[in-house]
Amino acid sequence: MATIKDIANRLGVSVSTVSKGLNGASDISDELRQMVLDTAVEMGYSTKRSKKVENRKLCIFIENMNYETIDEFGYDIVLGFKQNAFRRKWDVDILPITPAFQEEEKYDTFLLKNGYCGAFLMGLALHDSWIKQLENTTMPTVLFDNFISGNPNVCYLGTDSYEGITMAVNHLVNLGHKNIAFLNGSLYSLVSDQRQEAFESAMAAASLPVQKDLTAYGYYVSDSAKYHVPGFLSAGATAVVCGNDLIAKGVIDECTKRGFRVPEDVSVVGFDDISIAATFDPPLTTIRQERNELGRCAYDILNSLIHHIPISKTLLRPKLIERESTARCAHRD
Amino acid sequence: MATIKDIANRLGVSVSTVSKGLNGASDISDELRQMVLDTAVEMGYSTKRSKKVENRKLCIFIENMNYETIDEFGYDIVLGFKQNAFRRKWDVDILPITPAFQEEEKYDTFLLKNGYCGAFLMGLALHDSWIKQLENTTMPTVLFDNFISGNPNVCYLGTDSYEGITMAVNHLVNLGHKNIAFLNGSLYSLVSDQRQEAFESAMAAASLPVQKDLTAYGYYVSDSAKYHVPGFLSAGATAVVCGNDLIAKGVIDECTKRGFRVPEDVSVVGFDDISIAATFDPPLTTIRQERNELGRCAYDILNSLIHHIPISKTLLRPKLIERESTARCAHRD
Repeated sequence: MATIKDIANRLGVSVSTVSKGLNGASDISDELRQMVLDTAVEMGYSTKRSKKVENRKLCIFIENMNYETIDEFGYDIVLGFKQNAFRRKWDVDILPITPAFQEEEKYDTFLLKNGYCGAFLMGLALHDSWIKQLENTTMPTVLFDNFISGNPNVCYLGTDSYEGITMAVNHLVNLGHKNIAFLNGSLYSLVSDQRQEAFESAMAAASLPVQKDLTAYGYYVSDSAKYHVPGFLSAGATAVVCGNDLIAKGVIDECTKRGFRVPEDVSVVGFDDISIAATFDPPLTTIRQERNELGRCAYDILNSLIHHIPISKTLLRPKLIERESTARCAHRD
Repeated sequence: MATIKDIANRLGVSVSTVSKGLNGASDISDELRQMVLDTAVEMGYSTKRSKKVENRKLCIFIENMNYETIDEFGYDIVLGFKQNAFRRKWDVDILPITPAFQEEEKYDTFLLKNGYCGAFLMGLALHDSWIKQLENTTMPTVLFDNFISGNPNVCYLGTDSYEGITMAVNHLVNLGHKNIAFLNGSLYSLVSDQRQEAFESAMAAASLPVQKDLTAYGYYVSDSAKYHVPGFLSAGATAVVCGNDLIAKGVIDECTKRGFRVPEDVSVVGFDDISIAATFDPPLTTIRQERNELGRCAYDILNSLIHHIPISKTLLRPKLIERESTARCAHRD
């Protein structure tokens, strides 16, 4: 476990400054205090909390999502959540869950008996039994990438997929591409639906047809590419927008295997900007989800729900990250 | 101006408790401190702030919206914003603006030269010149009921109109109504569009046709009713969903004038739940916008934007408030 000295070394400040930051002393700036607290969480520092504050616990449930190492999608989301929660003296437990666990334990009961005041749920599948239970839960709940209608205790948090895919298409259109393919993620997912709708609108706005043989649903894994890229290439695609970065990796590999160079022959755009996207060959142009900010926001919303502010939906802006997997369209013969 | 004693009297606590609440003393509960601060803002108390905090100012710009008395739509929104801002030691100025003022003053320049760190904009019209400028503003900005695409400094805040209108239609369908009319607010408004789309989807979901002579756009004022209600009644409407409570007031008056009783002959549902809605004759069934919570949320989002969390959109849940202007459908001959 990190000590106060470790934190001081990392930040290049004195031990007493770190101590002031952790203890809420008033003679250091807000910015410095924030940096100390954020770094303390990041380095795994923990301490006995103030005795004035009763035990307050929140929980993050995670399914179908990797988060344990810094390379993985969920890592920064969890970190951001813990950073904002720590500042307000909440304890946070991280619990990986399975469908079987959800069958055994009722959602509300599980939170109550374990003393959680609210929860943040990431990666749940639409058919999970807890999703059904969220329609009537009385526990403040933030749900990543999923919307529950009619329950003021549950808020949907995500990145604005619509704006993200629109950015991706516009980027390719500006590079002169017309035969733009879209390899989406899984069917039956709220974000896949949003991305499909956004792709179709953005193409229409650019007066480009959406060709049936240039769009497909896959899964959110690299392997999806091999089933669809050959068809896209025969149909004359000069660019492929992908449902996430892993799919984009598969698309790049599949193009290369078939003698198409990226980006000279085919431009490829990902979604997410996971940390390895910059290390792909070529480095991936992608639509970034601001994951640390998503995590911070998840805590802020949970805090609002706990205070009876019935937020239904919060979306964050995506950001186009231009790297080397996209280039001006060179028409093929 | 309210004194500490006034606040103490209102809350029924001692002057020293109020003083502790205002000064952040640690020996009163969080809940009590919050109540003291909220009441202080509500009663117009102000004091010299702590000398440690530099001057921090936010601004609320208001156009086309009344907010000065407790009966008016904007009042609770402004109050909620000030309550949350006060707690974090921000000063808040409220500035009514006009289109002419927007032509004279550039948005960013006006904020900068007056020392504002961010702003909350309410009631602006789509063609206002500041709306155009928001596409590129660098100032953290929360915009009520309007969406600006592509700028991470601007967030859209509103009530989920889609869910609200769906609730209104479902409420009427459950009462046996089939010939449901919709008198929307103004054309060329984001929320009117959302409400129109929601009305059509909710009717479709209930397997009811959307009849051309049962839907119309008016303006967000009572006077709209007289142009459309006669047509709705001839077309056999047994219920009218309205774009806001003022329109609903006009609809009730127009029905009554023409010998139709509300709710015996025609059910009427409003939107907003402004404070006078409960005093209509009959008291209005309506879809409530949680205005104090919207104001609190506006501050919270502005604070997030200032800390570079690029929130794009936040919606709050509406709530069906059942009063006496709706009743089971009695088919007319």
